[in-house]
Amino acid sequence: MNINPAYNLLVVSTSTIHGSAFLSYIKEDFVQFIQTDELLFVPFARPSGISYKEYTAKVQHALADKHIKVKGLHDYPNKKTAIEEAKSIFVGGGNTFLLLKTLYDLDLMQQLRTQIAKGVPYVGTSAGSNLTGMSIGTTNDMPIVYPASFEALGLLPFNINPHYLDPDPHSTHKGETREIRIQEFHQFNKQPVIGLREGSWLEVRHGQIKLEGPWTARLFRRGAAAVELSPGLIHF
Amino acid sequence: MNINPAYNLLVVSTSTIHGSAFLSYIKEDFVQFIQTDELLFVPFARPSGISYKEYTAKVQHALADKHIKVKGLHDYPNKKTAIEEAKSIFVGGGNTFLLLKTLYDLDLMQQLRTQIAKGVPYVGTSAGSNLTGMSIGTTNDMPIVYPASFEALGLLPFNINPHYLDPDPHSTHKGETREIRIQEFHQFNKQPVIGLREGSWLEVRHGQIKLEGPWTARLFRRGAAAVELSPGLIHF
Repeated sequence: MNINPAYNLLVVSTSTIHGSAFLSYIKEDFVQFIQTDELLFVPFARPSGISYKEYTAKVQHALADKHIKVKGLHDYPNKKTAIEEAKSIFVGGGNTFLLLKTLYDLDLMQQLRTQIAKGVPYVGTSAGSNLTGMSIGTTNDMPIVYPASFEALGLLPFNINPHYLDPDPHSTHKGETREIRIQEFHQFNKQPVIGLREGSWLEVRHGQIKLEGPWTARLFRRGAAAVELSPGLIHF
Repeated sequence: MNINPAYNLLVVSTSTIHGSAFLSYIKEDFVQFIQTDELLFVPFARPSGISYKEYTAKVQHALADKHIKVKGLHDYPNKKTAIEEAKSIFVGGGNTFLLLKTLYDLDLMQQLRTQIAKGVPYVGTSAGSNLTGMSIGTTNDMPIVYPASFEALGLLPFNINPHYLDPDPHSTHKGETREIRIQEFHQFNKQPVIGLREGSWLEVRHGQIKLEGPWTARLFRRGAAAVELSPGLIHF
């Protein structure tokens, strides 16, 4: 599997784990990863419909003790230039359809790809991690808006399923399990899917992918049984 | 709320409830509702990726003791004529994106609307119930394929959320609850949403909507607190 060796990506399942504040469990790794005190925040996924300003303030607050200067992309009249000049980029979670639609509507996808290919560190949580894959076809979100395409940034040659959930053996609910949904995806799509449990993330550097956090991740390949990947370097 | 008085719709949350066979809990009502022994089945949502043939056989098997002749739409070379000549129509569940994409690709949406407006009984389960609403923007499914639009048949002046699930107060999972997802939907869409719990369905006749089954349904209106609707005639 070929990954551009220039990429520096942190592909995070969730911004928040149970019983802990926004970003707090990942903060040390986040700060060490971006290696700068300037962060461009992309608030377009708007979790629970909060405003860009509120969402950006949340990130500013979470990173204040690390002395990171966080600026929201929505605040720049020229957003392409803002991306071009960014020292590091963080795309927060929320609704993946809304995130992608906004990026297409503002014509920012290519600019993001270009900048990331220059090695600018990129952190994505949840919807922001879906964005690094080939498509948003394995998002868990509700399709509240219609984007111009489901094609994502395509930095990774697979898809991400964030907030991955194992089937509940006691459930009486007849909605599909996550695993069945991903199997349905593979009826129509070739790329592998990595299910990242809450608390897990991928660190991509030097063309290598490392699974971080306390859990294994679940790898789904078309036509093969799913397997568990252990933390550490991933080869597949 | 104006509903075309010619419509005969059965809008069903799920084909199957826990501990019971496919369609069995709803079979008596289904058969009484369609008032014919000829059923055109639309298998395009392909649950778990099963073939059209397998899915149609499942419906034939479930309705065999009621002597209903079930034919799959996929078997007709001219699908528009098949819809035009249908005595009753059943659109089964599975993946809503796949269902809608297939109907758009085959250019069958208008034909379905025309036929339903003539009073031909329509039964939809899960994805097939999403289809009766204004859009598929409140489906729970994974976007495994990209349809030409999210616009659904628009028979009802609201959206359906099938398999509606109440928040689990003991959950430690940070994915959005169903209610939060629907609130996000209302940031960008005006139409009300009815959350139908598994075991519930709407019967639409004479321009009236009746909630059937043992449960209340949850009505979400933009800018208002959600309310529970009791079984029986719905006024809103």
